[in-house]
Amino acid sequence: MIRIGILGYGNLGRGVELAAAKNEDIELVGLFTRRDPASITPKTEGLPVFSANELKNRADDIDVLVICGGSATDLPTMTPEYVKLFNVVDSFDTHARIPEHFANVDAAAKATDHVGIISTGWDPGLFSLARLYSNCVLTDGCDYTFWGRGVSQGHSDAIRRIEGVIDARQYTVPVQAALDSVRAGDNPELTTREKHTRECYVVAKEGADLAAIEKAIVTMPNYFADYDTTVTFISQEELDRDHKGIPHGGSVIRTGATGDGENKHVIEFSLKLDSNPEFTGSVLIACARAAARLQADGQYGCKTLFDIPPAMLSPLSGEELRAHML
Amino acid sequence: MIRIGILGYGNLGRGVELAAAKNEDIELVGLFTRRDPASITPKTEGLPVFSANELKNRADDIDVLVICGGSATDLPTMTPEYVKLFNVVDSFDTHARIPEHFANVDAAAKATDHVGIISTGWDPGLFSLARLYSNCVLTDGCDYTFWGRGVSQGHSDAIRRIEGVIDARQYTVPVQAALDSVRAGDNPELTTREKHTRECYVVAKEGADLAAIEKAIVTMPNYFADYDTTVTFISQEELDRDHKGIPHGGSVIRTGATGDGENKHVIEFSLKLDSNPEFTGSVLIACARAAARLQADGQYGCKTLFDIPPAMLSPLSGEELRAHML
Repeated sequence: MIRIGILGYGNLGRGVELAAAKNEDIELVGLFTRRDPASITPKTEGLPVFSANELKNRADDIDVLVICGGSATDLPTMTPEYVKLFNVVDSFDTHARIPEHFANVDAAAKATDHVGIISTGWDPGLFSLARLYSNCVLTDGCDYTFWGRGVSQGHSDAIRRIEGVIDARQYTVPVQAALDSVRAGDNPELTTREKHTRECYVVAKEGADLAAIEKAIVTMPNYFADYDTTVTFISQEELDRDHKGIPHGGSVIRTGATGDGENKHVIEFSLKLDSNPEFTGSVLIACARAAARLQADGQYGCKTLFDIPPAMLSPLSGEELRAHML
Repeated sequence: MIRIGILGYGNLGRGVELAAAKNEDIELVGLFTRRDPASITPKTEGLPVFSANELKNRADDIDVLVICGGSATDLPTMTPEYVKLFNVVDSFDTHARIPEHFANVDAAAKATDHVGIISTGWDPGLFSLARLYSNCVLTDGCDYTFWGRGVSQGHSDAIRRIEGVIDARQYTVPVQAALDSVRAGDNPELTTREKHTRECYVVAKEGADLAAIEKAIVTMPNYFADYDTTVTFISQEELDRDHKGIPHGGSVIRTGATGDGENKHVIEFSLKLDSNPEFTGSVLIACARAAARLQADGQYGCKTLFDIPPAMLSPLSGEELRAHML
């Protein structure tokens, strides 16, 4: 059994908890939180909840700590810190800071004979694998990544910070014509606006200036200004009823040619997810298994999915995998 | 530079030759054939062609031998034999015999400090990876593999052996309704007939009994009897004009649920290939790179794509991969 701890109990932490229960070789030791442990009710009946401060005493009880923190401020400090005590897995997704994060985790992990698997989930994660494998095979080609239709938490939060907004949900939606063109092998050059649209469902305060809210959204730099954005005002009841899920997904597509260029090929990997955090949590648990095995094999240091033999993610033996999945 | 030899110069051998030219770290040393070398004109101007007998003298000149033989009789003997002299890559695809082939290659490779990567290409190969990754992540789910629309060489050959047939081309075609149902997450149980149809284009001898040929095709056990099969008689000119390509492709789909089963997910990996042998050859070249690296790392023995860290397939460094593909 691989003994797992979960640090952080938001949407992702709950996703990891649910995924752990689906894997017979995984034993969930407990939840660790920076909040008051008494304020947390785990989904798993009887699962102990501890203060995060308790982790320093649990190095012998936990094989892999799955760190469910945010990429902005939590993970850059937490992952390098906890990898000194445990093998760890995180979902760090601030792309520009991955080299720095990798270096910090690698140094701390190697100094203490641990394994830290970073930046896992589906993007970065499974989508990264799709990009890598397809680039290795189709050396001449173009890469495309489309996201959605799905909820962007960051964009939803940005809308909520606007004066007069009570609640909001933002969907990122790929442009069908762009997808069709890419899948047809046209190798189009696409602007930001041509690839995705943004749909916003907004609950406004009574008497708020709706036109001002709409303008604040559609002109917001980085978040919305470069996209065709639609804003729909709805009631809190409608938002709670129709937009409570956290779906996401998307497609990684590589198109290219072989030989003299006359033979075209399209490689596509796509996901359609009802629950982004539950799916991401499932990827993290598979990586936790690999982390324990890599440590047992003496392969210490920081890893990404690029460095992990796929068989290490599976509970099945090499013989079983060759017989049933090859 | 990784020095490559190609053994066997049919469609796949030509595909490997073309793929080698697209990879700057790969040097193609020569072609090796069991035919008369003088009878072969390589696509690459000036590329030397040798008798396969010459291979026993070339152990110092070739890092990886890509063996482009047939799975029925060639590879079961050739791969274990040549892995004693070289690192090797093959595309062995007789599923029931993979355990035996793996064991034979593994023993010979370990005895001589070589690496043999077997059963690579797209199925087995990239499709196997899609099955493995999606099973690791979605533990509760159903697997589906659809092939086509594409040319099945084996089924085309089976038609050509029928009395009165001059030439033939057989396309395997996935049933759209089945694909739609799977992608919708219905988790259908599908019979062989419900998943694929078979389209046959046949050139018959003048005066041949067309009704008898058609009956011989559609009732042929294993190949056609379990499928809805259509037979169209055409002229040799039409076949040469409209059916000269060797396209293929398909989709690996896993559907499943997380949590209490209320959140559904669909993972799909699909390929649309104008040239099956050129694409397969491109996969073999990426695996050749990994074979050379695994040997340099002392990881001797038989491997499949399940055992290879994805980064080993790429010419890029870990830093470059994390910066550009993660």
